[in-house]
Amino acid sequence: MQNPPSPSLASIARHLGVSTATVSNALRGVGRVSPELAERIRRVAAEVRYVPDQVARALRTGRSTTIGLVVPDFGLPLFPDFAQAVERAAKRRGYGVLIADSLGTAEGQAAEIANLAARGVDALVVIPVRGSRVGIDEHGVPVALIDSATTLGNTASSDHRDAGRQLMGHLLALGHRDILIFGGPQNSAVAVERVAGMRERLDEAGIAAEIRHGPPSFEAGVQAARELDAGSATALACAYDAIAVGLVNGLAQRGIAIPRDISIAGIDGIAWATIVSPSLTSVRQDLAAIAEHAIAFVAGETAEPRLLPVELIVRASTASPSPRPAPTGVPA
Amino acid sequence: MQNPPSPSLASIARHLGVSTATVSNALRGVGRVSPELAERIRRVAAEVRYVPDQVARALRTGRSTTIGLVVPDFGLPLFPDFAQAVERAAKRRGYGVLIADSLGTAEGQAAEIANLAARGVDALVVIPVRGSRVGIDEHGVPVALIDSATTLGNTASSDHRDAGRQLMGHLLALGHRDILIFGGPQNSAVAVERVAGMRERLDEAGIAAEIRHGPPSFEAGVQAARELDAGSATALACAYDAIAVGLVNGLAQRGIAIPRDISIAGIDGIAWATIVSPSLTSVRQDLAAIAEHAIAFVAGETAEPRLLPVELIVRASTASPSPRPAPTGVPA
Repeated sequence: MQNPPSPSLASIARHLGVSTATVSNALRGVGRVSPELAERIRRVAAEVRYVPDQVARALRTGRSTTIGLVVPDFGLPLFPDFAQAVERAAKRRGYGVLIADSLGTAEGQAAEIANLAARGVDALVVIPVRGSRVGIDEHGVPVALIDSATTLGNTASSDHRDAGRQLMGHLLALGHRDILIFGGPQNSAVAVERVAGMRERLDEAGIAAEIRHGPPSFEAGVQAARELDAGSATALACAYDAIAVGLVNGLAQRGIAIPRDISIAGIDGIAWATIVSPSLTSVRQDLAAIAEHAIAFVAGETAEPRLLPVELIVRASTASPSPRPAPTGVPA
Repeated sequence: MQNPPSPSLASIARHLGVSTATVSNALRGVGRVSPELAERIRRVAAEVRYVPDQVARALRTGRSTTIGLVVPDFGLPLFPDFAQAVERAAKRRGYGVLIADSLGTAEGQAAEIANLAARGVDALVVIPVRGSRVGIDEHGVPVALIDSATTLGNTASSDHRDAGRQLMGHLLALGHRDILIFGGPQNSAVAVERVAGMRERLDEAGIAAEIRHGPPSFEAGVQAARELDAGSATALACAYDAIAVGLVNGLAQRGIAIPRDISIAGIDGIAWATIVSPSLTSVRQDLAAIAEHAIAFVAGETAEPRLLPVELIVRASTASPSPRPAPTGVPA
């Protein structure tokens, strides 16, 4: 296999009169490089079609350039969709993807990252296990993190705070005032951002809301539905679609009509949202755009982290609250 | 890391007075070894705790023993579940798993297998893309195939024919006689076996049924529901749950009551079957048992292929057909 010689970091550095370390840092989005210089470096790198060293090395060895993708848990319905989005973005550049599943633990994640690094992958894309830390400078290859605006080293993620704002804004606009939040895990940066966005809208409206925490799973939603005091709220704002879908199924089993008796909405945009009945109002993540940015980052095409916009999709599970019977003893 | 020296193929061969090639073939389940000799070889290998060469080599290099898993398409809801089953079976033995997604094409599959082999994985587990061929002796490592009884080199799979028999037997026992089969893709060995099992039961009952082919996807089911002549059948027998869930949703949108107007059942046992409303009667695959056998095979613990039993789970989408109005002009 013949490849044209690839322009090196050194030639870009010479062209701009800076050090190779500065070029490397700028292209990887680390270190102290001014935004203006970083932009000039990226422009030159794009013009000369710079290929990162790891990619060039893999091309010389005859192995395909391969990106290791570490997902937190294939048992949660979002992550297979995420994996395919990353694979498609990688394939558009001719890269292969090997996927590892942390099976929900920080130890699993560390082992999977180490194994992928030992197998000589050319870059890593990590969707971290909640509450874990991923060292982005420890693996000798570019690392992109897909998590949350508040995560150190985050490369690409949805604007989770805005997702929370859009979901809560929708429920408030429908007229709901008695709202219960299912906030997901307290140690998840993603969940914390989503809930913070919900609270922003509630605070603006001067409304207080109870919040419950738990796993971001279908089963957690079904369980919560069994225990819910159905008169306690007119709307359930869920930080995850999986919880919301579990609530829809569990409440339907109790004969509670959705959305007449209670409205339910979630965040993620998983396929389950369209399969459940009634279909679920949800704030959709743009997985393709997140994946594209993460792959562009490890390919050295950009050094900027980015928050991608989210979009509210109104379906059948939300409506204005039904008029309540007037309290006894109070004239109507 | 210190490991005790591993007994070699050669020492097992010397012990039994056969060639090392015979021992290797017997442990990998290939070549012409009599069942009795293969059984003796496996017994001795188990007694001396034989570790396959690839595994021993990986242990010496300090990398974790890693199994490459190639799935046909993470966009179909069964395969993330399959991946986790394989991962859990591998982890029980301390093996890591790297996953590659063929993205639905035979070319993708060949590229993913080659890339995993180039990365030095110690064994491969492949769920083939339909209509593709996987060479099991071409990669220098043990290869387990998870597909169908009729697939050359199949290592572990559900008894798909029996799944078809159980599904059709259930519909016939409920009293259905006007049955439409959604058979999935014609070039899938799995689909062909499932449909053959359905036909066996129909033939025994002396009943003919129309069959339609198409992709094994939710979208294909939704599309088929739009075009279905609702009076043409009292039951829909689907070779895949994903098609069945699509049909349930699509028919519900048309106001057709399930199971009163029409019964629907599928095969696989995916999570969607419990999320859709009404919940879907389905024949469940035992993914954990299939994965366990595939991993045991590549670990050299067994050389036998195995078909794993399946189980009918009756849920809310099937019932006896409603009495039909008597045809006009015929006295009741």
